Amino acid sequence: MSYPGNVRIVLVQPETPGNIGSTARAMQTMGLSDLVLVDPVCDPHADEAYMLAHSAADVVRQARIVTSLTEALADTVFSVGTTRRTRRVGYPIFTPEETAREIRTRTEREPAAIVFGRESSGLDNPELALCSIQSTIPCATETQSLNLAQAVQIYCYTLYQASLVPSEREYQWTLARHQELEHFYAHLAETLLRMGTRPATTMENYVARFRRVLSRTPLETRDVRLLHKLLKRMAGEQ
Amino acid sequence: MSYPGNVRIVLVQPETPGNIGSTARAMQTMGLSDLVLVDPVCDPHADEAYMLAHSAADVVRQARIVTSLTEALADTVFSVGTTRRTRRVGYPIFTPEETAREIRTRTEREPAAIVFGRESSGLDNPELALCSIQSTIPCATETQSLNLAQAVQIYCYTLYQASLVPSEREYQWTLARHQELEHFYAHLAETLLRMGTRPATTMENYVARFRRVLSRTPLETRDVRLLHKLLKRMAGEQ
Repeated sequence: MSYPGNVRIVLVQPETPGNIGSTARAMQTMGLSDLVLVDPVCDPHADEAYMLAHSAADVVRQARIVTSLTEALADTVFSVGTTRRTRRVGYPIFTPEETAREIRTRTEREPAAIVFGRESSGLDNPELALCSIQSTIPCATETQSLNLAQAVQIYCYTLYQASLVPSEREYQWTLARHQELEHFYAHLAETLLRMGTRPATTMENYVARFRRVLSRTPLETRDVRLLHKLLKRMAGEQ
Repeated sequence: MSYPGNVRIVLVQPETPGNIGSTARAMQTMGLSDLVLVDPVCDPHADEAYMLAHSAADVVRQARIVTSLTEALADTVFSVGTTRRTRRVGYPIFTPEETAREIRTRTEREPAAIVFGRESSGLDNPELALCSIQSTIPCATETQSLNLAQAVQIYCYTLYQASLVPSEREYQWTLARHQELEHFYAHLAETLLRMGTRPATTMENYVARFRRVLSRTPLETRDVRLLHKLLKRMAGEQ
């Protein structure tokens, strides 16, 4: 699928079938169809979902259900975690427009994902850390309360709008997939531990600092291979 | 209220309380609060409306209910009719972004309005003709099926986004209100009839051609006065 059809919408533990249906409808009107549900709390195939999906019933029917966010992102080359918080130390927060530009710069064919959290509590920090970048919708009210499906609608609309202007991409990346990167971060944590690194808080937090740096750069498969080699050299394995 | 708070959302004959509630929520997150309902088919104060309004219950509570679109637009200086049709002979159709720019160029303080039609059938031609311009949301699917509240969300979001960049207005208009213009069009129709004009179809259609021209220009109260004088002169009254 070419942009914006290559963009997957991931809902983490959605709580109401209506929001799943409305999400499907929002996606289809803007040319998206790849919906993944992570461990849904509600029944995604309840009548209400199909009622609100309207003509996008197929998107609901074909939605994949997975058990973890890691699984939902495994084959993606770029992922965006949405959050209501506009200030998170050390992380730049992208607007929907910047997000659309960023996705398109990274990839127009390989799967990318925008991840939305629970209606009640959004995404938690470890979930956000799994994503390449973070994004928020600028709002007039401080205690922002956009409905889940309305937030999805704004992103899908923005992606589609961006697709109406010619692409500015010059270089075709062969980007590393999410699972290749996760494999590298696991290797990094293991190597650091083995080398006696004692992080101030947790190893996860320590590795998050590397994520922060590396997720800002498009990494190709060969770059990740190089990073693995570097770790092995550090550990004295090569 | 300053932009985008000066933009009124008008729903013509809304059919479900849920959409009224979701509309209120979409408005409030983006700094809008002036909701007007024209002859609602459903009960705007049903529980469902408040449930979906979430923290925007006040917007629902304070929504004005009127009996005609003319009444809803009376004090506005600029109005936008939304439509799903992208081709209408003789009318330019604005995107939400162009609409936001146009509204802001015309007015940042006086009331402007964006008008949305019925869930089932949208706005009819006479209703669209009452508006200064027409706008549509570009969609990927040909048989576009955006939900009413999602369409409202896209416009409100776009208006708010536009408000985040400094205004480019240089000239402060004292724009004529909708009712002053309607008074002029009535005067025009009456004068044309009196002068023996026999329109090919209806006088309404004939006057619509003048609307098309005049609605593209910001008209001040003194301009409308001048047009009235012109009509009187044509009719030999002065």
